[in-house]
Amino acid sequence: MTNTRVTIAEIAREAGVSEATVSKVLNGRTEVAPATRARVQALLDARGYERRGVRTEDERTGLIDLVISELNTPWSMDVLRGAEQEARRAGAAVVVTSTEGRSDESWLDRVTERRSDGVLLVLSPLPSGATRRLTAAGIPFVLVDPVGGFDPAIPTVGVTNWAGGLAATEHLIGLGHRRIGIVTGPADLVCSQQRLEGYRAALGRAGLPFDDELVRYGDFRADGGAREARALLDLPDPPTALFAGSDLQATGVYAEAHRRGLRIPDELSVVGFDDVALCEWVSPTLTTVRQPLLEMARMAIRSVLDPATSDRPLRLELATSLVTRESTAPPPA
Amino acid sequence: MTNTRVTIAEIAREAGVSEATVSKVLNGRTEVAPATRARVQALLDARGYERRGVRTEDERTGLIDLVISELNTPWSMDVLRGAEQEARRAGAAVVVTSTEGRSDESWLDRVTERRSDGVLLVLSPLPSGATRRLTAAGIPFVLVDPVGGFDPAIPTVGVTNWAGGLAATEHLIGLGHRRIGIVTGPADLVCSQQRLEGYRAALGRAGLPFDDELVRYGDFRADGGAREARALLDLPDPPTALFAGSDLQATGVYAEAHRRGLRIPDELSVVGFDDVALCEWVSPTLTTVRQPLLEMARMAIRSVLDPATSDRPLRLELATSLVTRESTAPPPA
Repeated sequence: MTNTRVTIAEIAREAGVSEATVSKVLNGRTEVAPATRARVQALLDARGYERRGVRTEDERTGLIDLVISELNTPWSMDVLRGAEQEARRAGAAVVVTSTEGRSDESWLDRVTERRSDGVLLVLSPLPSGATRRLTAAGIPFVLVDPVGGFDPAIPTVGVTNWAGGLAATEHLIGLGHRRIGIVTGPADLVCSQQRLEGYRAALGRAGLPFDDELVRYGDFRADGGAREARALLDLPDPPTALFAGSDLQATGVYAEAHRRGLRIPDELSVVGFDDVALCEWVSPTLTTVRQPLLEMARMAIRSVLDPATSDRPLRLELATSLVTRESTAPPPA
Repeated sequence: MTNTRVTIAEIAREAGVSEATVSKVLNGRTEVAPATRARVQALLDARGYERRGVRTEDERTGLIDLVISELNTPWSMDVLRGAEQEARRAGAAVVVTSTEGRSDESWLDRVTERRSDGVLLVLSPLPSGATRRLTAAGIPFVLVDPVGGFDPAIPTVGVTNWAGGLAATEHLIGLGHRRIGIVTGPADLVCSQQRLEGYRAALGRAGLPFDDELVRYGDFRADGGAREARALLDLPDPPTALFAGSDLQATGVYAEAHRRGLRIPDELSVVGFDDVALCEWVSPTLTTVRQPLLEMARMAIRSVLDPATSDRPLRLELATSLVTRESTAPPPA
């Protein structure tokens, strides 16, 4: 080890400030006077203070933070399972924080204070200060990307949403469906657009018309799935199959089908997106596009723990794949 | 604060051993010679070394461990959510470890090494060394008890399983059902027996016969629910309602009903146990006995963080309550 790294104590001495002040600058805290901040920052830069999170074995705390917007979605459990397994394998443990959708950034104070070995972010939108402060604190981070569309400078593990939308739709076309509805995710999320574009591409390849009337935007929740399915099934010429855009949304489609007495798959085919455990718990079991959530989380853990990857931002898109179960069949004759 | 507490350094000096050795004795580690262990232990006792987990603010690490046998059940997420919320409120964070059903106790080394402020155990059976080592290390712990029947000396937050079984069965009797099947949990779990006894008591109160033929033991999983529902529905005089013993088992009952073309609730009523999010995601939505899982976890967090509760083992049984949804109705005429 070439351990000629400059220390916080040396920087503090040269700048004529306390070590706490240097830490605050490194952690991106705001309670440092601008002039002091500038002086400390200049010294940190000049002396080449190592901020890239490449820690020696001894410097490791053995803790990796998982910061997630919600813990009550079926796929948050899969992300946690993958992260916990991989962290354990590396001799580390996972600290879980839910932001519960709040934009409050107090978790950043905690993560930097405990000198976490790395952070997995499962947040959308990403709080403005997060990447700056984590970078300043020398804490490697990766976005486990559920929705797409983040700044390319941010290390990300995502999935091929477009290919997933294509596969779901081609599966339905292959079964003989010609009028296929889509309830994609919220309109402002890139993944919703990508899944919709995959759907559109599949129709195009099969020479089927793209009909705006068959496109709805949901909220990735059961309620939204039910509401948008209702709108689609109320059309004068209703679809015979629905691509639900997420497994949870698919349960809403099931609820609406149940309400109408429509049998799945005999009278309505349904495809989800995610492949969470829920797909095996609903009746009929749900055909879906598999996001490899465990693998995404494992990959993210490996990348924050492996110094070799810390020089360039990781940009990974893992492949999706179709999992055929009981909810899809040829359209009614 | 009366801070006259003896330190590990003083004990080490008096015993003529290293501080590491004293720590090993405190942590219940086995690699200390018996004579040394006895000498150190005698000194710890004589000097009244404080091992009850009553830490001052400064001694806190801000970490609480949640050690859980499985992360892929619907209710593990609720336990985690409750724990995470309450820990966050107290300025702490939750470290999650899954044992994945293994009896390996390496997590105990990690928990004691990081001087966790407290441990929530969601394990059955509890590893033999766990309570001894956590006590020795001065780390408060509570069992968030999913199954019942633990040593009364172990601090526990559980639920009223008997009352839950009673409420589920009385609900079905109140709707007019006279032949009610039960798929309770695994036969070796106390909670399975308690839920079954509640069922039996409800029948007795209503003057209905208890029929062994209508009692099955599942595995708290969907597969077991489907298998045992099949056996019950194959009876010459099949039940018109099933108490499924867990929400996940209820999804197996749904699957078997779906396979047979039996409509829920018109032709078969189903009651679950747990009240996890899944109950709202299945069609029809599931009537169930609510275990207040979030509250149980919150209570467990409070008890490990509150020194006032550490003198006597906590034994709490939170009340269950019936949540009526769409899966229950009067029996077919």
